[in-house]
Amino acid sequence: MNRIKIGITAGDVNGVGYEIILKAFEDAGMLELCTPVLYGSPKVAAYHRKAMELTTNFSIVDSAETAQPERLNLVNCNDDEVKVEFGTVSEEAGKAAFQALERAVEEYRKGFIDAIVTAPVCKSAIRSDKFQFPGHTEYFEHELGEGAKALMILMNKFMRVALVTVHEPIDRVASLLGKDMIKERISTLDNSLKRDFCIEIPRIAVLALNPHAGENGLLGREENEIIQPAVKEMSEEGVKCFGPFSADGFFGSGDYSHFDAVLVMYHDQGLIPLKLLSMDEGVNYTAGLPLVRTSPDHGTAFDIAGKGVASPESFRQAVYSAIDIVRCRRNEEAIHRNPLRKLYFDRRDDSDKLKLDASDEA
Amino acid sequence: MNRIKIGITAGDVNGVGYEIILKAFEDAGMLELCTPVLYGSPKVAAYHRKAMELTTNFSIVDSAETAQPERLNLVNCNDDEVKVEFGTVSEEAGKAAFQALERAVEEYRKGFIDAIVTAPVCKSAIRSDKFQFPGHTEYFEHELGEGAKALMILMNKFMRVALVTVHEPIDRVASLLGKDMIKERISTLDNSLKRDFCIEIPRIAVLALNPHAGENGLLGREENEIIQPAVKEMSEEGVKCFGPFSADGFFGSGDYSHFDAVLVMYHDQGLIPLKLLSMDEGVNYTAGLPLVRTSPDHGTAFDIAGKGVASPESFRQAVYSAIDIVRCRRNEEAIHRNPLRKLYFDRRDDSDKLKLDASDEA
Repeated sequence: MNRIKIGITAGDVNGVGYEIILKAFEDAGMLELCTPVLYGSPKVAAYHRKAMELTTNFSIVDSAETAQPERLNLVNCNDDEVKVEFGTVSEEAGKAAFQALERAVEEYRKGFIDAIVTAPVCKSAIRSDKFQFPGHTEYFEHELGEGAKALMILMNKFMRVALVTVHEPIDRVASLLGKDMIKERISTLDNSLKRDFCIEIPRIAVLALNPHAGENGLLGREENEIIQPAVKEMSEEGVKCFGPFSADGFFGSGDYSHFDAVLVMYHDQGLIPLKLLSMDEGVNYTAGLPLVRTSPDHGTAFDIAGKGVASPESFRQAVYSAIDIVRCRRNEEAIHRNPLRKLYFDRRDDSDKLKLDASDEA
Repeated sequence: MNRIKIGITAGDVNGVGYEIILKAFEDAGMLELCTPVLYGSPKVAAYHRKAMELTTNFSIVDSAETAQPERLNLVNCNDDEVKVEFGTVSEEAGKAAFQALERAVEEYRKGFIDAIVTAPVCKSAIRSDKFQFPGHTEYFEHELGEGAKALMILMNKFMRVALVTVHEPIDRVASLLGKDMIKERISTLDNSLKRDFCIEIPRIAVLALNPHAGENGLLGREENEIIQPAVKEMSEEGVKCFGPFSADGFFGSGDYSHFDAVLVMYHDQGLIPLKLLSMDEGVNYTAGLPLVRTSPDHGTAFDIAGKGVASPESFRQAVYSAIDIVRCRRNEEAIHRNPLRKLYFDRRDDSDKLKLDASDEA
């Protein structure tokens, strides 16, 4: 049994995390695609299951190393009893969520799991001395990044959107942009599309920051001074990137469908069209890191927690994406493991060996 | 014949203006809805007609006062010969476009036309001592605003979007916002929805500026300090306005369909979803002014000028909208011309007259 092992962190116990996880693995088909290992609390899982009358079974295991195939495995990360109060911001819940994260990182380091899918946490609840990060992305970058910079990619069946700036006030966006930073983002995105999505020659669209793409400087200088030079230089390095495109016309004309990914300058520029095209299936992928980590693109949804109405669709897609990306990376590695030595035909050389190996077109 | 007279300015002669106008009025049905008066040049119109093998006829008239019904009337505004060079920015073309605008304003003042629909101009070509405005909107606000502030509304069959800031670099957007300004925009929008669109009690959604609606101050302070108080105060004044809503979720969840209009903070926030929902039918309406003025939501489209491929759909919708708005305003005026005096029933008053007029529920 060589199934991909997906580590799943339970997220905030007062949110919809356990619900969407249990719902997703209610379907036995999901257990044929991967071996899931949930990091959380068996008692809390049982509580959620009962509260929402779900039927999903799980097996408690000591670690992902001893995880059983065709089961939802559960590693207990919370020593203390964790109280569930649906829809409430609580320190206790934040602590439990963090313990699950810590354990998943530990087992990933030991090679017990192949990827991590995170259920949503409550940012104000999880904040502590040990967790000072704005979110999961920065935490994983810090813990498992090995110095690499993470790039947030959000995707659904219509497009992939990568964000140059993420959770920044509009006020700050322009001042954060820089040519080298955008070049780095384009490069990370290009590598991810090749390695994680098996796209041999990815086509990347880069959006403008300002209305009408700055209208040649009349409505903003960032296009001429920062974005356009960054696109040009990356293009000269061989990356198939294009732009900067005026954002409204780009989405309106359907041009997004011609590209493998769209690099947007700020959160709403990418998230408005992505969610408008498809609200419930968005997956957040943390590209650029050695680790494969995905998550649903929604939050703890405290307003509907415990009611049994949360849709597991985005979480399910996050699991599918994690599996796909791990497979892609393995394929890529297998393909490039033993490359044929490149042979050049030397016109003035008479040796038989060289001639035999050379191709006809040489 | 009491048809609505729509003044149409020809726009830049090197763009798609004449083409979309001639195409729209090729259909005789359009001439039954209104009496169109084109401000431009007969020679240029004939040139475009021939170049693109269009069949639309027009009648040259001295002014809109003598316009013929069931004809496309044309008022010559350009004394000199105007050279047409498709797709070129030219001062001559800018001058011709401005003369058409001036003439339309003049005839509107005289009461010869009921509304103005503008074909696109080239901003850098039209700029001169006499025209120092960023665009049509500001020009009409200055010429025919009578002190009122214009509000840009863009609309298609899915929604109406009103813009708090329009053609501003992202850099400047946050610093331009203010509570009083947003209150004024909400008020103008509310009045326009009532008067121009005959919506008795309009429901207005107001969007947030920052990602996640500022996440309670973590990702920006404008929601808490500016937008939310503005919405609250207008709501207390009886306007049915709601928000601020996180922009991505608002569009993703389809919530826009529950409102008569959406007030967005900046250009792309409204234009991305509007164009994504429907690219070719957008209409730009300049609300808040005594004048009714609409335009298609595209530019001169120099790249396809003279090729005969421009779609007249957005222009046609702009004409329909202008007609609808003029009609709505007339209805509204008629309804409120002689309102019944409101009578209060005084319980301690014995006069018969009062009792007879009072309603049963009093």
